[in-house]
Amino acid sequence: MAEKKLVEAITSMEEDFAQWYTDVVKKAELIDYSAVKGCMIIKPAGYAIWENIQKELDARFKATGVENVYMPLFIPESLLQKEKDHVEGFAPEVAWVTQGGLNPLQEKLCVRPTSETLFCDFYKNIIESYRDLPKVYNQWCSVVRWEKETRPFLRSREFLWQEGHTAHATAEDAEARTIQMLNLYATFCEEVLAIPVIKGQKTEKEKFAGAKDTYTIEALMHDGKALQSGTSHNFGDGFAKAFGIQYTDKDNTLKYVHQTSWGMTTRLIGAIIMVHGDNSGLVLPPRIAPVKVCIVPIMQNKEGVLDKAYELKNRLERFSAKVDDTDKTPGWKFAEQEMRGIPLRVEVGPKDIANNQCVIVRRDTREKIVCSLDEIESTVETLLETIQKDMLERARNHRDSHTYVATTYDEFKDIVANKPGFVKAMWCMDEVCENKIKEDTTATSRCMPFEQEQISDKCVCCGRPAKKMVYWGKAY
Amino acid sequence: MAEKKLVEAITSMEEDFAQWYTDVVKKAELIDYSAVKGCMIIKPAGYAIWENIQKELDARFKATGVENVYMPLFIPESLLQKEKDHVEGFAPEVAWVTQGGLNPLQEKLCVRPTSETLFCDFYKNIIESYRDLPKVYNQWCSVVRWEKETRPFLRSREFLWQEGHTAHATAEDAEARTIQMLNLYATFCEEVLAIPVIKGQKTEKEKFAGAKDTYTIEALMHDGKALQSGTSHNFGDGFAKAFGIQYTDKDNTLKYVHQTSWGMTTRLIGAIIMVHGDNSGLVLPPRIAPVKVCIVPIMQNKEGVLDKAYELKNRLERFSAKVDDTDKTPGWKFAEQEMRGIPLRVEVGPKDIANNQCVIVRRDTREKIVCSLDEIESTVETLLETIQKDMLERARNHRDSHTYVATTYDEFKDIVANKPGFVKAMWCMDEVCENKIKEDTTATSRCMPFEQEQISDKCVCCGRPAKKMVYWGKAY
Repeated sequence: MAEKKLVEAITSMEEDFAQWYTDVVKKAELIDYSAVKGCMIIKPAGYAIWENIQKELDARFKATGVENVYMPLFIPESLLQKEKDHVEGFAPEVAWVTQGGLNPLQEKLCVRPTSETLFCDFYKNIIESYRDLPKVYNQWCSVVRWEKETRPFLRSREFLWQEGHTAHATAEDAEARTIQMLNLYATFCEEVLAIPVIKGQKTEKEKFAGAKDTYTIEALMHDGKALQSGTSHNFGDGFAKAFGIQYTDKDNTLKYVHQTSWGMTTRLIGAIIMVHGDNSGLVLPPRIAPVKVCIVPIMQNKEGVLDKAYELKNRLERFSAKVDDTDKTPGWKFAEQEMRGIPLRVEVGPKDIANNQCVIVRRDTREKIVCSLDEIESTVETLLETIQKDMLERARNHRDSHTYVATTYDEFKDIVANKPGFVKAMWCMDEVCENKIKEDTTATSRCMPFEQEQISDKCVCCGRPAKKMVYWGKAY
Repeated sequence: MAEKKLVEAITSMEEDFAQWYTDVVKKAELIDYSAVKGCMIIKPAGYAIWENIQKELDARFKATGVENVYMPLFIPESLLQKEKDHVEGFAPEVAWVTQGGLNPLQEKLCVRPTSETLFCDFYKNIIESYRDLPKVYNQWCSVVRWEKETRPFLRSREFLWQEGHTAHATAEDAEARTIQMLNLYATFCEEVLAIPVIKGQKTEKEKFAGAKDTYTIEALMHDGKALQSGTSHNFGDGFAKAFGIQYTDKDNTLKYVHQTSWGMTTRLIGAIIMVHGDNSGLVLPPRIAPVKVCIVPIMQNKEGVLDKAYELKNRLERFSAKVDDTDKTPGWKFAEQEMRGIPLRVEVGPKDIANNQCVIVRRDTREKIVCSLDEIESTVETLLETIQKDMLERARNHRDSHTYVATTYDEFKDIVANKPGFVKAMWCMDEVCENKIKEDTTATSRCMPFEQEQISDKCVCCGRPAKKMVYWGKAY
């Protein structure tokens, strides 16, 4: 029964992409729904992906001098209100604790939606001199935002993330750190998750509440919608002025610090699903897959088959190989391995053993490779590298072939209505046009990419002189 | 200025142990106080210790088949109330969320003080057959308990921990897992934290709210007070019955699962401080120390000194060596390294270099070892092992020499009043005596140790026939 449920057909993505996503998330056993509306349970297969993301990102952070800390879960209302734009952005969507133990609280506390205010209050106390700078702190935690509509990984009332918060002596140092982290995120997405991203700056309208500038990486999902996959904010000295974070510089004058923050979330798991998944389920890039090789013994009751499977598992231990030695049929096991997105399947039965070989099947292409048992380690290693490379390549091709250029507003509207993907178009930088585009088409400005192109000299919406080329798209 | 504050004398532990503790916690830069009463900020030096605890424990968990998951932060009131004893134990000390976004919630949500109820609700949905058992899940997260009096690491309104929650087919399997995890905790404390512990069972009065049996490991702090350092609970089928968690067994009958939970917290950092620290600050066991070697260049402006220091750092990289190349004096650097509890200091100056040697100083004993530069890797390795062993040995000696035996109530009261430490004494197992002892002496039953001794045949309090030997003590 349980087996049957797991491997039964999932909705095809062509038929209903949203339902396909929900099916994969559930049937690959990544999450479960909980008794708390809008909050999900991350199951072992999902959490193991997050652990790998954490491990990889954390090592990259630390190599740039980041130190981890842990800040309180709660923010007193008065602290949240210190920076005007910030509180306006977040107050409507926070959860409030009003009672502690049996008594009402004197001041209500919000459950952190993000921790800028806590870090500012902390930095105000520990930064005195230029010698105390920079502070480059990060924390791994969960945050809460009281969303009305939720979807697993993409938008939930509680999610896991990391939030880096830094304080610097100069505006230049802050800007350099903001860009450094955005580049780190982009490289991580491409190298580890095999997801190509567009790097750029958010418009005034789309930037983070309280930021001077917000930078973003935007990825394109299989259905042609964009997913904001990581953001890095330069706060300038706005928070420093609101919180009074000053340091004594070498010239003995008091100056405000310049701050940044940057974050990535469990939303990345949603991106992995929607960039790489197919109609058989999840497809995990080898570098992020908790199990990279699933060994399926064929006719496992025959003498020597299971022993050989275990022997191969030991030889492939550095690829986190596992043997499926349950009493399910090989067919069920294949379907399960495909649903879970394990990059390689190794099939080994009595005939294979007699021929000193096995069959290796790629999850991404289903290509079958007959491999000598003597060379299994090197073959698996090479195949995993190839899969990683091919997955990035395919995702990039998909993105590029779904990126369009519009020079007139009719063209723009036609593309948004009929061709899912990114639209590159010029913009006058007036929010009126940005709002009109959103109203007319539901597409939003994803970013003003660092790599600007001069598509035309007129705003695609109003025809006035254009200032920036923008990536537009419908977004998650 | 900042230097001076850091290394200025801390209160001596003989004069005021509580103040000594607070001084060390602050001056070793482990924590800072936050704007939220009772919630602390864990600073980089403190969080790095927690990361090492996590890494070590998590690997040990996974070796026994534990899988990590993540459950929601919130528990609906109705869910918390499903198990009667559990809700009675926790309801008085939870924080309640009553407002989400701009609207009051229909049902208030408590911020998890522990997640038994969430795991039960989850298990009810995912367990159908004996094939689904056991479930051996764990999560790393923060929990909230609205404590009135708080102390850094020891008791705070929010703390970090891991909570394991398992479901088994039989009572025997659940009991075996409960004991397995208690043993894992004890071994971890001894091998990694160099803290010897007493393993035993909690009395009915002291057990966890909703548990059938609670097991504990109890450590003795330097001031003679006990610290409960980890607990493992066998729930029997009590929660299963309250939540309706049943499975179809091989014989096709419906049976209730048997459950366990077990946890360790950031409180362990408090234990490390209070077991190993001294009047110069923190003393970290090498296996948990984020930095194991601090290299202090002497006369670092002389040619070749800093180069040699960096060379040694590279050679000692696997011991997370760092060089203190700031412009502070060597004296300040020594004091700082001692305050932070870094296990070894390597001093290297022009004369040392001329003689192809360096001076290594142990943090725990202050012993100085002159070491040939050719042999620094092996010497450091051996010294770190020796320190780890010696620290456990010293802690064990301290514990044993502060463990007393009482056969009469006068003797018992005298020991508790005048000799800080554990008291071993017999007990009739009547809660009346346990309450009387607490009222008369403030000592509580720490545990009924697995290793029972027959000290006498009478209860130390009432004189009736004794059933158990108990460790008593004042506790954090």
